[in-house]
Amino acid sequence: MHFMQSLQQAWQRHDSLVCVGLDPEPAKLPAHLRDQPDAVFTFCAAIVDATADLACAFKPQIAHFAALRAEEALERLIAHIHDKHPGMPVILDAKRGDIGSTAQHYASEAFDRYQADAVTLNPYLGRDSVQPFLDRADKGVILLCRTSNPGGADFQNLIVQDEVSAGRPLYQRVAATIAREWNDHGNCALVTGATYPEELGQVRQLIGTMPLLVPGIGAQGGDIKAVLHHGRTPDGTGLMINSSRGIIYAGSGEDFAQAARAAALELRDTINAWRR
Amino acid sequence: MHFMQSLQQAWQRHDSLVCVGLDPEPAKLPAHLRDQPDAVFTFCAAIVDATADLACAFKPQIAHFAALRAEEALERLIAHIHDKHPGMPVILDAKRGDIGSTAQHYASEAFDRYQADAVTLNPYLGRDSVQPFLDRADKGVILLCRTSNPGGADFQNLIVQDEVSAGRPLYQRVAATIAREWNDHGNCALVTGATYPEELGQVRQLIGTMPLLVPGIGAQGGDIKAVLHHGRTPDGTGLMINSSRGIIYAGSGEDFAQAARAAALELRDTINAWRR
Repeated sequence: MHFMQSLQQAWQRHDSLVCVGLDPEPAKLPAHLRDQPDAVFTFCAAIVDATADLACAFKPQIAHFAALRAEEALERLIAHIHDKHPGMPVILDAKRGDIGSTAQHYASEAFDRYQADAVTLNPYLGRDSVQPFLDRADKGVILLCRTSNPGGADFQNLIVQDEVSAGRPLYQRVAATIAREWNDHGNCALVTGATYPEELGQVRQLIGTMPLLVPGIGAQGGDIKAVLHHGRTPDGTGLMINSSRGIIYAGSGEDFAQAARAAALELRDTINAWRR
Repeated sequence: MHFMQSLQQAWQRHDSLVCVGLDPEPAKLPAHLRDQPDAVFTFCAAIVDATADLACAFKPQIAHFAALRAEEALERLIAHIHDKHPGMPVILDAKRGDIGSTAQHYASEAFDRYQADAVTLNPYLGRDSVQPFLDRADKGVILLCRTSNPGGADFQNLIVQDEVSAGRPLYQRVAATIAREWNDHGNCALVTGATYPEELGQVRQLIGTMPLLVPGIGAQGGDIKAVLHHGRTPDGTGLMINSSRGIIYAGSGEDFAQAARAAALELRDTINAWRR
């Protein structure tokens, strides 16, 4: 199934805009799991199974697996999601970006090796660096636009001068270019941080109903009401609002998965209160 | 040893500005290796051993390993370089970029897991995304500036308007910011493509003697003479001129390593003819 189609179905079926970020860190795992073999897979799979009916997507962050030499666990985790929760979109958060044949290899890593439904990418290298991903019309291509960190302003908020976006910041030019020129297959989405909801709203003005992946609520302090106000589409969707730590580390005991479920439920309902 | 120190020593000791890019692709391996177990490691290690005295650095490109599930071969390859060719800098070409704790995990991936001496990064997410790498003062932090691909112009060449660089393209603003603000430990370098040598020269004007990693000669058509003219520092160094395919696939028979050596020698001498 196409990523965009499965995302839309998950929004409806689960009445949820929550994206569950899977960022396993050994020191934060529940004590009873920490010394088990395969703890990372066991932990993440339990979170997935406890929250799948409350989420619109799962987003494993690849560095958390790579730093642990746990690529094989990541492969099994994504296979587990596809097997146990068919139709749930999996976004590989990798923020890759390179040119030519190397871009092909990164596309192969994300879509063939890991079987992800979508991947996050960095647009700085331009259109040809993204083309091998765009060409996979059934896959989602989620490009960094305005990120949630303070340093995001260093370059993304520089004012650029050209006929397309005279006097507008770079992140808006990136959004406009992707919406106008890169989205032939309708498989693009953007990353816009919850910490700058008015800038997220500026992006929404430029891109129609293209989905936004929104990190930065919870630990980073983004305001859910403002994100919904500025970012939702007319039908009350258009957003994948990510929470990682707030859900997966909601509990640290043997009931960690139930604690994650309670946190996901609360976030879904908080979002839904501002959604319509 | 610090990356910058080992790079300078390799420039002198080997009288070479050649960086050998290690981009293994199964279909391009010599026929007699193709079906061997561990072919990727065997191939790359043979290239390394045949060219180490002619190069200033090795640059394995991680997607080529990740797409093959060959992370463990990459670990062994870098260990092999450190073991057999002590002092030779290894640049992990990963072009990572993410925020907060995720950036820490990527730094751990590059420097702790793979034991690389330097890593390539994407600057779009700004200073705090790079800080965990900058803090590793003995490691090189090589940031994308003006890339060698045509799409590099899509955003990198947009004219930005601010007090630092009014009327200059984004890639120059990136270069100036990194040189002025990010290089406290003197461990930064930039990626500037050989395909745009005058733009490379504009960057050189802004950054003093900071090293430039220069892809894009050979298959991509960059002009070596122009790269030297615009990019070298007063002492005739300052450049890591990368060749991947032109060296590692110079031969396809059982003598592939000798063919790679001959290609590296020719490139070194061509560069040196324009260097002083």
